[in-house]
Order: sequence, then structure tokens, then C-alpha cells
Amino acid sequence: MTATIDRKADLYPTRVTTGSSLIAREEPVVWGKAAEGPLSEAELSAYDERGYLQARRLVTPAEVEEFRAELRRLSDDPAVRADERTIVERSSQEVRSIFEVHKVSEVFARVARDPRVVGRARQILGSDVYLHQTRVNFKPGFGGADFYWHSDFETWHAEDGMPGMRAVSISIALTDNHSFNGPLMIMPGSHRSYVSCAGETPEDNYKSSLVAQNAGTPPPDVLDGLATRHGIDVLEGSAGDATLFDCNCMHGSNGNITPYPRSNVFLVFNSVENTCVEPYAAAAPRPTYIGARDFTPVR
Amino acid sequence: MTATIDRKADLYPTRVTTGSSLIAREEPVVWGKAAEGPLSEAELSAYDERGYLQARRLVTPAEVEEFRAELRRLSDDPAVRADERTIVERSSQEVRSIFEVHKVSEVFARVARDPRVVGRARQILGSDVYLHQTRVNFKPGFGGADFYWHSDFETWHAEDGMPGMRAVSISIALTDNHSFNGPLMIMPGSHRSYVSCAGETPEDNYKSSLVAQNAGTPPPDVLDGLATRHGIDVLEGSAGDATLFDCNCMHGSNGNITPYPRSNVFLVFNSVENTCVEPYAAAAPRPTYIGARDFTPVR
Repeated sequence: MTATIDRKADLYPTRVTTGSSLIAREEPVVWGKAAEGPLSEAELSAYDERGYLQARRLVTPAEVEEFRAELRRLSDDPAVRADERTIVERSSQEVRSIFEVHKVSEVFARVARDPRVVGRARQILGSDVYLHQTRVNFKPGFGGADFYWHSDFETWHAEDGMPGMRAVSISIALTDNHSFNGPLMIMPGSHRSYVSCAGETPEDNYKSSLVAQNAGTPPPDVLDGLATRHGIDVLEGSAGDATLFDCNCMHGSNGNITPYPRSNVFLVFNSVENTCVEPYAAAAPRPTYIGARDFTPVR
Repeated sequence: MTATIDRKADLYPTRVTTGSSLIAREEPVVWGKAAEGPLSEAELSAYDERGYLQARRLVTPAEVEEFRAELRRLSDDPAVRADERTIVERSSQEVRSIFEVHKVSEVFARVARDPRVVGRARQILGSDVYLHQTRVNFKPGFGGADFYWHSDFETWHAEDGMPGMRAVSISIALTDNHSFNGPLMIMPGSHRSYVSCAGETPEDNYKSSLVAQNAGTPPPDVLDGLATRHGIDVLEGSAGDATLFDCNCMHGSNGNITPYPRSNVFLVFNSVENTCVEPYAAAAPRPTYIGARDFTPVR
């Protein structure tokens, strides 16, 4: 691939006052080749076309058990609960997310440098990669909240200064994902259209946007158009499956009234050729535990 | 069938102060015979076992169009909007439900006496039937609310004085039901267990319970047990399909962030041998547009 990303130009303006619009993606989706492995030609081309790929049984059932136990241990640890990187829900006092979890836990540090994981990220991005964000998520049953449609890249570009689209998220399921317990939904193919969103970024937007997305939310008519064009895929799967998805996929999840909670390990790899600069549409970058400014490649 | 319902005894106490409990169902689920038609032996036995049945293409695409047009007409009619039987959402000013719709609209009056509909109700209940409740529902996209787990019979027994379990709901879909736009979820087989719920019925409970269920809500441990025993069926289908379900099915629906709204015509038929008496757990019956006190059989 010869494509490069111009870090100075803002190809993807957003949080604008002129109203929302669609901008065609400039960068490739897949930067590496099948020969480099571990992903096959067919897998790379499916990822290229749909913007995501499910890797069944990426980790073993024993590993799932180990990760779940570690998640429980972290959630019960008073020091972890008190850490600013841990999001505790006020009403239930339950831990919802732990950010920068690869620094909080040796178990998850190992996952973040596991060749099954990093190898896939390197191949898709065609370069060395570093961790832009990591977290574990716990989404409860009996009324767990929805997460409205958004593109992660829109936020990372606006608020973290990620120049171009050369990042991949890898989410490893620690629970089964059924159609009915609020699974990830992706509009397949939407990763080729960037939605420039209306509205200024509020100060310290991350404090509220981790709970509910406001700035950076596409308007109904745009979502309607994307859904009509692309449809909606519901990503069901088993604990141990992983989902790899492009940074610009339009995605979200419904709430969950069932008794079945959902949890996952979530790792964002960015190309070392796409390291963050100053935010494109925010006064200051978000804290480094949400958007890393240390670009050391994962080895 | 020789089973009868004792109208005086309260077989199904609820809204109790002693905590929630499970009570085994006394009545049959299917009261009629296959020979009476239109439902086959296999359909009746599936309904008996799972507590519900999907009738594909119960109405034609042309009828769906007619019903949708009528729903739009009603929603735009200032007199209908001002009617107490119409539930208008405060924030969006959209019509969510129109109760007693068979009296509001000649189109839906015809549906309520259509042999394809009433014939099925009569056969399942093994007697003449009357309309306990009718409504049209509109559940919007882009964040339509969830509806928490409940048994309709629990409410009809507590607040309307329905003595026993001899009622069937028939919901005709006016839009496609996907797994992702908040479809009906039923725990198959749950109709054989009655969940006696804790908590007194507040005065005029119907005013808030149409928006969010509070009294009559089973606690998490009971729902967990029911879901483990029965599982959860997600009722996908096309516009024109109907779902017939027993009055005591544990059911609910997730919220809906997709652009696809859902609407349906909802008709509750009760056996004329099971007409309502005084409420079993409320100071006064609900208004007659929510729980009928005119028991004239549908002809």
C-alpha cells in the first residue's frame, strides 16, 4: 500500500456548525496482505467489504474463565474501584468499565500483546501498532442501557487527534452474545462513509459521553439513509469469539432487559503511522487512559 | 373440556406484602379442538406447549397498507389525539397507543370481528369470546423505550378482576419485526407458572403503568429462574404476520435505537365464561377502555 495519511490536513471535519454531512473515506480499510497471516484472503476481503470480521473461538474456554475471574477480582478490588480509570454506575454501584486495563492487570496485559490478537491488528493495518485504548466492559441485564449509533473514529479524530482511519478495534466476548441481550450492531459497509456531525464539543465531554453519546451523534435522517443502504448486522456469538471492526463502522447496541449480562475485553490498535496529533475538534485531548499519547509499538 | 373457573376464589393472589412466589397454573391453555378449526392439531399443541403461536401472513399486504394508512389517519386526527384513550408521548408529541380502537375506527372494528382473528380466539378458548382490550401501538425507532418483563394476566387479574387464565392476545404486525428493533420476546412455557408479585397497587396505577410497569413486576431472581428454565424466544416476522399468545406468558421487549419503528394492532379476547368481576388487588377497576366491562360476544 502506498497510501499515506496527511497529519496536518483535516480530511474529516466534524462538530461543525453547518449541519451534518457525509464525506467519502480516503484511506484503505485493509493495509496488509494475506501472505503475512494470520488472516486469509477471504477474511481480509470480508473485512474490507463489511468493515468487520468475527473470529470464532479466538481464545479458549479456559481463557474465558480466567478472564472472567480476573474481571471479578478487579471489580471487587477497592483500589481498582477508586481509580479514576474505573467507571462505577452510581445507582447500582456496579463496575461498568475499567480503562487502560492492560496497565491495571497483568492478565489483560498478556491479552493485549497476544499474537492471536496483535497479529490480526498488524496485518489489517499493515504496520506496527500501538494501543490507543483498552478496557473491559460489563453491561448488566435487567435493564442495561443502550449505546446510540456512532463511529468511534469520529470521536477519536475530534477529541484525541487521530489523523486518519487506520485503527482497528478487537472485542473479545467474555459472555455469549444473543440477539436479545444488547449485542453489538454494525451497519456493514458504513465504514466507507464518514459522518461529519453538527455541534460543538463540550468541555470534558468524555465524562458524560462514556455514559451517553451526545456530541458526535449522527442525526436521524443520516442514520436512516445509512441503514437503508447498508442494513444492520446483529453480531451474535459465543464467549471466546472476537469481533474485529474498523474504526469508522457505524455501530451501537440496544438496551438489555434480559437476565443475561454482557462483558468483553476491548482493545483498540492504531497504526504507528497514524499517531495522534492535537484534537481536531476539542480544546484539549482526553486523558491518556482514554486516548493514549504513548505510541510505543506493541511487541 | 370440563374445567371451570371459580370466580369467587382467588387462585392467583398478587400485589402481596409477603414477597414474590410462583403458583402453578390451574386452567388448561387450549380449551377447543382441532376439528373446530381453523388451527390444526399441530398448531394447537405448539400453542399449548410454548404459550404462543405465530400465524404467518394472517392478513394480506394490501390489508397491511390499509391498516397503516388508517393508523396514520387516526394519529393525525385532532379529535383522536385529544381523546383520553389516545396515549401521546409528551416529549415527541407522537401517538404511542390508541385504546378501544375497535370503537374509534371502523377499519379496526372490522379486524376485531374478522373470522381469521376471532375464529382462532374462539378455538383456543373453546367458547364465545368478547374483547377485553384493543389498541394500536406505535413504537418509534431512534431510542424507543423497552417494556419490562410481565404477564398480562397478572395485571388483568389484579386490576381488572379477570378470574382465571382463559384469554388470548392477538397482535397483528403492521411493520417487520427484526431481532434489532425491539420485537416481542416470550419465555416459552412460562405461561404455566403464575408469578405472584410483591407490592401494593398504587391508585390509578394504569396512568403510569402504560408507560413503565412497576407494580406487578417480577423480581430479578424469579426472572432469572424462568429464563434459565424456559429460555427466551425472539419473535421476528413480517408485516401481516400475527402472534397469538396466552394471557400468562412472561414477555417483554427491548428498546430500539434502529431507524425502524414498530406498529401493531393488538386485540385481547377473553372467554365469555371468564368475564371480569371486582379487581382482585386494586381499589377500583381500570377505565373500561383499558379493561372492558361489556361482555357482549363478538359475532
